[in-house]
Amino acid sequence: MNIPQSSFPRVVIIGGGFAGISLAKKLRKKEFQVVLLDKHNYHTFQPLLYQVSTGGLEPDSIAYPIRKVIHDYPNTYFRLAEVQQIDTDTNLIKTNIGELKFDYLVVATGSTTNYFGNKSIAENSMAMKSIPQSLNLRSLILENFEQALLTDDLHEREALMNFVIVGGGPTGVELAGALAEIKKGILPKDYPDLDTRRVQINLVQGADRILPAMSEIASKKAEDFLEGLGVNVWKKVRVTNYDGKLANTNTETSFRTATLVWAAGVKAVSLKGLDAEDFLCRGNRLRVNEFHQIKGFEHIFAIGDVAQMESETFPHGHPMMAQPALQQGDNLGDNLVRLSEGKPPKPFSYLDKGSMATIGRNKAVADLPKFKFQGVFAWFVWMFVHLYFLIGFRNRVVVFINWVYNYIKFDREARLIIRPYKKEIV
Amino acid sequence: MNIPQSSFPRVVIIGGGFAGISLAKKLRKKEFQVVLLDKHNYHTFQPLLYQVSTGGLEPDSIAYPIRKVIHDYPNTYFRLAEVQQIDTDTNLIKTNIGELKFDYLVVATGSTTNYFGNKSIAENSMAMKSIPQSLNLRSLILENFEQALLTDDLHEREALMNFVIVGGGPTGVELAGALAEIKKGILPKDYPDLDTRRVQINLVQGADRILPAMSEIASKKAEDFLEGLGVNVWKKVRVTNYDGKLANTNTETSFRTATLVWAAGVKAVSLKGLDAEDFLCRGNRLRVNEFHQIKGFEHIFAIGDVAQMESETFPHGHPMMAQPALQQGDNLGDNLVRLSEGKPPKPFSYLDKGSMATIGRNKAVADLPKFKFQGVFAWFVWMFVHLYFLIGFRNRVVVFINWVYNYIKFDREARLIIRPYKKEIV
Repeated sequence: MNIPQSSFPRVVIIGGGFAGISLAKKLRKKEFQVVLLDKHNYHTFQPLLYQVSTGGLEPDSIAYPIRKVIHDYPNTYFRLAEVQQIDTDTNLIKTNIGELKFDYLVVATGSTTNYFGNKSIAENSMAMKSIPQSLNLRSLILENFEQALLTDDLHEREALMNFVIVGGGPTGVELAGALAEIKKGILPKDYPDLDTRRVQINLVQGADRILPAMSEIASKKAEDFLEGLGVNVWKKVRVTNYDGKLANTNTETSFRTATLVWAAGVKAVSLKGLDAEDFLCRGNRLRVNEFHQIKGFEHIFAIGDVAQMESETFPHGHPMMAQPALQQGDNLGDNLVRLSEGKPPKPFSYLDKGSMATIGRNKAVADLPKFKFQGVFAWFVWMFVHLYFLIGFRNRVVVFINWVYNYIKFDREARLIIRPYKKEIV
Repeated sequence: MNIPQSSFPRVVIIGGGFAGISLAKKLRKKEFQVVLLDKHNYHTFQPLLYQVSTGGLEPDSIAYPIRKVIHDYPNTYFRLAEVQQIDTDTNLIKTNIGELKFDYLVVATGSTTNYFGNKSIAENSMAMKSIPQSLNLRSLILENFEQALLTDDLHEREALMNFVIVGGGPTGVELAGALAEIKKGILPKDYPDLDTRRVQINLVQGADRILPAMSEIASKKAEDFLEGLGVNVWKKVRVTNYDGKLANTNTETSFRTATLVWAAGVKAVSLKGLDAEDFLCRGNRLRVNEFHQIKGFEHIFAIGDVAQMESETFPHGHPMMAQPALQQGDNLGDNLVRLSEGKPPKPFSYLDKGSMATIGRNKAVADLPKFKFQGVFAWFVWMFVHLYFLIGFRNRVVVFINWVYNYIKFDREARLIIRPYKKEIV
């Protein structure tokens, strides 16, 4: 892989998401050689992917070149690589671009869509975990409307204008809200010869409330907001099958739809060689101790979505979100430095800064540790927090300009079909 | 195609480029039904495609949804369609989404890359006439550098870092200049472990000067600028063959390169049914009279790159650029309205507003009708003119912000590999 020899121990980080980047940042200028591997050459700000899918933001403004992140990290190397296998006996990782020895290995591979073994859904639904997937969804939504214009078959036209979003977590809620705003603000102007009142947006949730990880009041208010926007919220309903045209559920309800977005589950991205049953928890997560170490290893760690650190407060590990990933990367970085200085590591403790979800303009819900609030103020806080955590000054400016423009004009201009909708490309 | 009947005559415009859009604009609110067809759902601002290829701008900011252009054109319909054939006997066009009758037909299909029948070049080179092509080129350039890191074979590494741009018109000159700036400003930071001094940028031009359509002083100065940036300019050299690794020329010079960009020729996009030898000139252009009419028809027109209106000043038709296209669309629109009012049409006369090309920061050349100037001022004028002609307020703001940022930071941040490089996708 052409990484030069170094007298410092080599830390290999697999994954340039929130966890991997925050770790690399901590180790810059320290006595380690850091090698960061990712299959993309950019870091993706996943919380805003739904705005790419719905034309609110350009993909480039929510992504950031990894090489630019590490510009002034003199000890850090990046390689565009897909990891194929870990050999824990010889401390070697095998990738599509060659092999690499490590002294410390950090698995920060994140998560991917979980279809829970349901083939029909895996094959026919859309996911939204990466930029190419989000662009595919954007293209499909737009192509559906172009298609709807052409058919005289009312059933077909309705199926093309019927959107089913499965999963009532933040992703599903935010996507449903954005689609409802498009229905109201853009479709009637873009498609005057189509009866866009017939557009249906359905949010299907298995549990008895949406945003189940948030407070009851947040769930309630989010549901009110969605219903105010005209979204049909289905609770205690699980989609069991989808053939590309008809989605069946565990109830009598079914949906004729050309677009089913699956946001109902994620699973960790596991690696060959670290996938023994011993390590794995539910959803492929790797069980780690309070120092992020994988069972049986002192020098192999997992952080972020892929790691499951069980505790009294979090018996199934921390939520698979940006905050725990950032904090874990930070803590592990500190511990590696302490280790190199002969000091004992500090156990990880998670500082819950709260969670938020936005539904539409002036409509968001926020559960902070000390306050819970909803509405305009929550929406402003949501925007501020997301701008703050975006990487890159240019990105922040461009996202801010777009938001101001979209707010004033009730518009979302990034609605180009720039890639043919192709399921296989992720 | 589900276009409603209308008591007004139907004008079908094929192509939403500069010519088609400017015509549609003229006919809005007039007594015509206008149907605009394009295979993309957006208008592309082609003069800035090279900035997409080189990471300076996001694709969304140089494109504009066609449906948004026609929002307040009550008589205008858009359909996403590929035209397959024209039947001039029955005034019918056949497309992939069905057939359509027309009263007036306007061909504004623009131009595409011309390989002059050279198969090896067509198969192995990159073109830059559309947004997907520009994104492909961006991905390929970035992937080359990732690849160059991995090889110990110096020849292979040099081929990966060797860029050959064929064609010394504005596209080739602007791309070469942008690559030279990337070599200087970005590559040393992004690839500290690669000897980026070895990056070679070659501009290969068949004629004895670059920018042959501009003044001698502009050509001379542009060449000085390019050489100052370290671009190798090869004049009187024609690439004759390229197998993906080695490019041969009509001289003893040859290039080992993984990236050959072909900007050495364009040809009009012809349509079945309007491709009789009678109509066609060199490069598939359709010969039209001073009223944009195709020979033998009163109601079938061609405008923009696809049209060749021969005159004393322009024996081979107007240059295939934005300005003639805009003016022709405008003039044809006026004439159709005059026709409907029973007035005689006015022959087209082209107002040459001059031409410009930019080479790099503070470096541009401009030939205006009354002045010729080069350098910083030309560069500012170039930016102003391009911002002015961009469609959409948001696009202008975002492009402006990016330019200011890139200027201050010597940077170009939109450098994501967001689609696998695939030749077949255009």
